[in-house]
Amino acid sequence: MKKLGVAILGMGVVGGGTYKILTDNREYFRRTQKLDITVECVLERNRQRALDLGVEEERIASSIEEVISNPNVDVVVEVIGGIEPARSFVLQALMSGKTVVTSNKEMVCKHWYELEEEAKKMNAGLLFEASCVGGVPIIRTLTDGTQANHILSLVGIINGTTNYILTKMEQEGSDYASALKEAQNLGYAEFNPTADVEGFDAAYKLSILSSMAFNKRIPLENVYREGITKITAEDIAYGKKLGYKIKLLAIGKDTPAGVEVRVHPAFVPAGEMLASVNDSFNAVKLVGDSVGEVMLYGRGAGALPTGSAIVSDIIFAGKHPEIAYSTFENTKEADKNTKFVSDFTTKYFIRLTVEDKAGVLSKIAGVFAKYNVSLKEVKQEVAKANGVPLVIITHETQEFSIRKTLEKLESLEEVISVDSLIRVEE
Amino acid sequence: MKKLGVAILGMGVVGGGTYKILTDNREYFRRTQKLDITVECVLERNRQRALDLGVEEERIASSIEEVISNPNVDVVVEVIGGIEPARSFVLQALMSGKTVVTSNKEMVCKHWYELEEEAKKMNAGLLFEASCVGGVPIIRTLTDGTQANHILSLVGIINGTTNYILTKMEQEGSDYASALKEAQNLGYAEFNPTADVEGFDAAYKLSILSSMAFNKRIPLENVYREGITKITAEDIAYGKKLGYKIKLLAIGKDTPAGVEVRVHPAFVPAGEMLASVNDSFNAVKLVGDSVGEVMLYGRGAGALPTGSAIVSDIIFAGKHPEIAYSTFENTKEADKNTKFVSDFTTKYFIRLTVEDKAGVLSKIAGVFAKYNVSLKEVKQEVAKANGVPLVIITHETQEFSIRKTLEKLESLEEVISVDSLIRVEE
Repeated sequence: MKKLGVAILGMGVVGGGTYKILTDNREYFRRTQKLDITVECVLERNRQRALDLGVEEERIASSIEEVISNPNVDVVVEVIGGIEPARSFVLQALMSGKTVVTSNKEMVCKHWYELEEEAKKMNAGLLFEASCVGGVPIIRTLTDGTQANHILSLVGIINGTTNYILTKMEQEGSDYASALKEAQNLGYAEFNPTADVEGFDAAYKLSILSSMAFNKRIPLENVYREGITKITAEDIAYGKKLGYKIKLLAIGKDTPAGVEVRVHPAFVPAGEMLASVNDSFNAVKLVGDSVGEVMLYGRGAGALPTGSAIVSDIIFAGKHPEIAYSTFENTKEADKNTKFVSDFTTKYFIRLTVEDKAGVLSKIAGVFAKYNVSLKEVKQEVAKANGVPLVIITHETQEFSIRKTLEKLESLEEVISVDSLIRVEE
Repeated sequence: MKKLGVAILGMGVVGGGTYKILTDNREYFRRTQKLDITVECVLERNRQRALDLGVEEERIASSIEEVISNPNVDVVVEVIGGIEPARSFVLQALMSGKTVVTSNKEMVCKHWYELEEEAKKMNAGLLFEASCVGGVPIIRTLTDGTQANHILSLVGIINGTTNYILTKMEQEGSDYASALKEAQNLGYAEFNPTADVEGFDAAYKLSILSSMAFNKRIPLENVYREGITKITAEDIAYGKKLGYKIKLLAIGKDTPAGVEVRVHPAFVPAGEMLASVNDSFNAVKLVGDSVGEVMLYGRGAGALPTGSAIVSDIIFAGKHPEIAYSTFENTKEADKNTKFVSDFTTKYFIRLTVEDKAGVLSKIAGVFAKYNVSLKEVKQEVAKANGVPLVIITHETQEFSIRKTLEKLESLEEVISVDSLIRVEE
């Protein structure tokens, strides 16, 4: 039986989950996969943590060099996270010809060029299913399930923390701050939640997933990014009345005009499948030219779901030694040929507070008309102490026109405040 | 660049879709997959049909022998359907060492032993993503995406025809006969709809999918099967009031007591993801011990979606020449060790028409009690001309107890008719 030796770098949540799956299921994988997978060593600064997880003392390596020089290690699992030392460790592993399996979206997103270059030089594998949407096999699907298609679009809820927060706000009417607090108490959000709530995490994943979907590298700097911190309970309540639910969407489209990639909160119709993706669950909807719509749904994070993706990659590498690299030329030079669309088209929900006097509505409508923004619905609510709330839904229009419209509206004397701008994806 | 020659057996709907995808995308696959895939020949009795699809005269083979003996053919795509001549053709292809890609669920389900045996002898590939749930990469997911897991259960809507019919009945309040008629007119149901509406098609697929999920062969004869022909508009209306939607479910569970596999109509809570799978869409929900819940959703049939699955298998075979056979010993002898549970546990919706007189309810409740069936809800409706409708929902109970209960109820003088028995899967 084929033997496969694994080293795990980092015994945190995901490392621990990976270790547990591999050790609990050694016999199961021998039987079903015809692979004898052993954890040869782990690298973890906090030795006690590794010991507590059941790792034998002599299998705790004291340096990356010790891991790399171990001839029994075929696959190096990197689950440290962040850029350094993860990147250096991974490069060293690849340079020594070992296959790397990683959950590190930030590293893959930012350093994919050099990682793939090193991997190719040494004919080493580089697999990262666990970097995007935890246990959901979205990368395997893109590489080996829907690869017969031109993928036209990809729309996902790919960050569990923000989906948990928005679901709580939706279901309990709570405001952002208290929903975040709850998420932090439950361990769904970190003490410093920036990477999640400002959309960085989703942008890393969208960069990776859209690169794979569209067969061209989509660098992070081309991803438009907006987080959820400005979403209010009021917006959600208005959305509900209009039949919408709010989600942090990651959207990628491959159009004749160029690639469109953006992460931002959006209203989606309550009847849509994506609207039913709640709490910390994730989902990605693909549209392929042959297959049509395909959606994958599941847990986006967690020790065992992410561990499941890592172990699936380990098994895949063990069973299929020829290595599939990117379906595109993964170099900075090749990227220069990719066109991007930043003035994208969608619908918009706009909430204003305006003065309570005659003629205001006409003046505001005039501004929209000036920038060629056609309105679908205007709701003037009952006047409050600070003015009259006005809720506007536009027809499909250009992002840049909306930004100009809002700028102009903000300068109007009759407009007390521009309270919200939320895109509507139908 | 690696060349891959394909032969297509059968130029019907799926064959045509496969041909179109392969010919339209030759350059695309050269660029992204580094494979030069050509359609070397097709086998189709109706030559005109092949010509109309754009196949050159000289590429229309006149016999299977001509296909098999063509040294340029590496992969044989079988999309004829049914058992013969598909099975003989596939066996001949495998015996000559060619990889077979098929969409034929009935053939794989019924003749998997011998097909795999021949494939193994000749080290030929046998791939059948297209046999289950069209374009949705559920087989790739089971083999290469969630293979790190013990799959505990699999619940799917895996027949598009019946889902279309049930969706129409649900949305339009129409009865079974007219919804079937509509499905036939639109080409969603065949003139002889038995294979779909009686659940055979779903049972073939469940046999294949549960075999792959549970790593043991699940023969068709162990799948409990019940179709949708007895479902009435009335049942659906009652279900709606109770917060349920009706679906033809395919359910597989791997439990310590044995494997449970069944296809039957069921009520599912309206808020569940599966309840939102409408029209001819399909979905499969897996629960793995590490990954938790994963759901895949998409088109279950159609020329291009199924063609997408076939072409994805062709590309996979081209890129990964080492062949992954079943994760279990695929022989009749090995199967004898598998235990099955036929007396499964679920909840039930029962509709009766009873006499309009005092004491009836108590007598009926007594029958349920006798067989240890605990009731969750009993609704006595307004009396109609033919008696009083009684709707009962049970708590979880055993299938065999319910059958005995209904037998006994049918024998009661006070029971005019037992109108419906629908399982409730929550």
